[in-house]
Amino acid sequence: MIINPFKSELNNIKTKIDNELNHFFSEIITNNKITNNKLNFNKPLLEAISEFTLRGGKRIRPILIVKGFEAFEKETISESMMQEIIKTSICIELMQSSFLIHDDIMDEAYTRRNKPTVHKMLGKNAAILAGNVAMVLGQNIILNSNFKGEIKQKAVKRFNEIIEMTNYGQLLDLQLSEKNIGDVSEEEISQVILLKTAKYTIEGPLQLGAIFAGATDKQLLELSNISIPIGIAFQIQDDILGIFADEKELGKSIYSDIQENKKTLLVWYAYNKGNPEQKMFIKSILGKKEISLNEFEELKKSIIDTGSLDYSKKKALLLINEAKNNINKSSINKEAKNFLLNFAEYLVKREK
Amino acid sequence: MIINPFKSELNNIKTKIDNELNHFFSEIITNNKITNNKLNFNKPLLEAISEFTLRGGKRIRPILIVKGFEAFEKETISESMMQEIIKTSICIELMQSSFLIHDDIMDEAYTRRNKPTVHKMLGKNAAILAGNVAMVLGQNIILNSNFKGEIKQKAVKRFNEIIEMTNYGQLLDLQLSEKNIGDVSEEEISQVILLKTAKYTIEGPLQLGAIFAGATDKQLLELSNISIPIGIAFQIQDDILGIFADEKELGKSIYSDIQENKKTLLVWYAYNKGNPEQKMFIKSILGKKEISLNEFEELKKSIIDTGSLDYSKKKALLLINEAKNNINKSSINKEAKNFLLNFAEYLVKREK
Repeated sequence: MIINPFKSELNNIKTKIDNELNHFFSEIITNNKITNNKLNFNKPLLEAISEFTLRGGKRIRPILIVKGFEAFEKETISESMMQEIIKTSICIELMQSSFLIHDDIMDEAYTRRNKPTVHKMLGKNAAILAGNVAMVLGQNIILNSNFKGEIKQKAVKRFNEIIEMTNYGQLLDLQLSEKNIGDVSEEEISQVILLKTAKYTIEGPLQLGAIFAGATDKQLLELSNISIPIGIAFQIQDDILGIFADEKELGKSIYSDIQENKKTLLVWYAYNKGNPEQKMFIKSILGKKEISLNEFEELKKSIIDTGSLDYSKKKALLLINEAKNNINKSSINKEAKNFLLNFAEYLVKREK
Repeated sequence: MIINPFKSELNNIKTKIDNELNHFFSEIITNNKITNNKLNFNKPLLEAISEFTLRGGKRIRPILIVKGFEAFEKETISESMMQEIIKTSICIELMQSSFLIHDDIMDEAYTRRNKPTVHKMLGKNAAILAGNVAMVLGQNIILNSNFKGEIKQKAVKRFNEIIEMTNYGQLLDLQLSEKNIGDVSEEEISQVILLKTAKYTIEGPLQLGAIFAGATDKQLLELSNISIPIGIAFQIQDDILGIFADEKELGKSIYSDIQENKKTLLVWYAYNKGNPEQKMFIKSILGKKEISLNEFEELKKSIIDTGSLDYSKKKALLLINEAKNNINKSSINKEAKNFLLNFAEYLVKREK
């Protein structure tokens, strides 16, 4: 068996991040600031955030914080520096939990990673609060870190910008889910992908890491030119997997994007290239709560027959190539370049 | 006509704060970071936060930030320093809007200040997002201010602590609203008042202001000893007004606390001191959606006859006296002492 050094590096950082998350939550719950009042009424909320976050995930965002740091840190990275960036990188997993907790309320989703969503466990109202608390806990991780004051300030500002833009992305996504597919423009779909994925999942974390390493604005812009095409490609691949993947691998229902009337590029393109029957069929299935296996197979067939699957795959590959070009001509160090090249490759080839 | 100099000072600061809020929102909406993408889809959300915040309010929290600053600023406060603290003080009005937007969703409230709540205007999902965005906008005001980096960091940490504790207060409030009144302890009610009002409305803003002036931890503790009794008294008075005030003055339904099954000290004490009929009556009316005028009059009568109104009024006065003692023996300057003494008096005498 050939061991892929890129994947083992990814797993290596992921293990450290998972350990840090475990440690963080056990501290938070043990040192619950309310405990001294005997009531301890907020413990179930903290435990829910903890259990929800620790269910797993690829931890792509904190890994990218670590890698963004490595790409621009001028000193040799010592053990203690590495510990500090790992410790700080989990801020974005708390942000992610906050978003997912609120998104699940909005989508009325009952399961996430094959377990009940937070609003199913605590009720909708307490879940709104849990999302709010998770966000503050994430931000506090930056404020309590050992980085220089100036750097922490810049990082918190960037953190807030990510929160704001991702909320706008979710807003537009909601607006589009209430529209007929025929009334949605490609520009609108691109804007959702940009805000909800490219900026949030790739650009934001890489730049945060770079900020912790003291990167210049010019260097941050270089990262941006690398991140945005990677991020868009990542979302296109996600949408493909959302319909064509193995449900068990995916950890969520493959019907959910369709049931929630999500306007993905994949479905949008199929609709726009479809013949009248295909158009009518796609329109009729979007937002439907009860979807039969036959209907789902027909949807997949339409996506293939209209050329939409090919178009999406090609578009993702073009974007990855654009990103690779930008990686190669950037000023980041060789190790980081190699990592990002492998990472770009991995994102479009992954199957979950 | 005698002009009360305390009230005219209060109004004077309030006017400056209202002007600043107007200015802030017109800037935010004009320089909408999404505008350059032509879609401008997030404008209705920003406009809703703006309109909601500008509906008015006593602006007690930003006023207390200004006063906390004045109490501990060592230099003579110049015009430009005053401008900066006024500009920064509105951060807490954004926090307040964030809380109210989310609270109104949880309470299923349809009006706020005689106008539709944000979730009535935008829908529940977009209102969750509006609450999130308002919170980030508030925090950015601190980060973008001209105070020293070290001070801004301390202020943002305190800001986050207020968010966290207020969310816990709301959580306990929700938990209690699902309980029978007979199962609720006075300690639980006190904890809600402490977290949702005393710490949030009085202690937090005064301490934030003091932090901007570079106050020491000892000085912050002095403010705490002043703020907590004032804050508890403030909430007790609020609960009294919530049932005994003129509905028009109050700007919200006088039935709402009862309909939402809020466990106030006023109702809790009446229940615990009530005879079996009064107990049964109070239990039956709590959480009821359709309340007749007669029932509401009977509730008021029970609150008076059981001695609960007197008990609440006396408790508020005792707390105000405790606060006054703590103000007098504190190290804060004479002007700030006078302001806080008048403020304490005003809070228990106000009628809206």
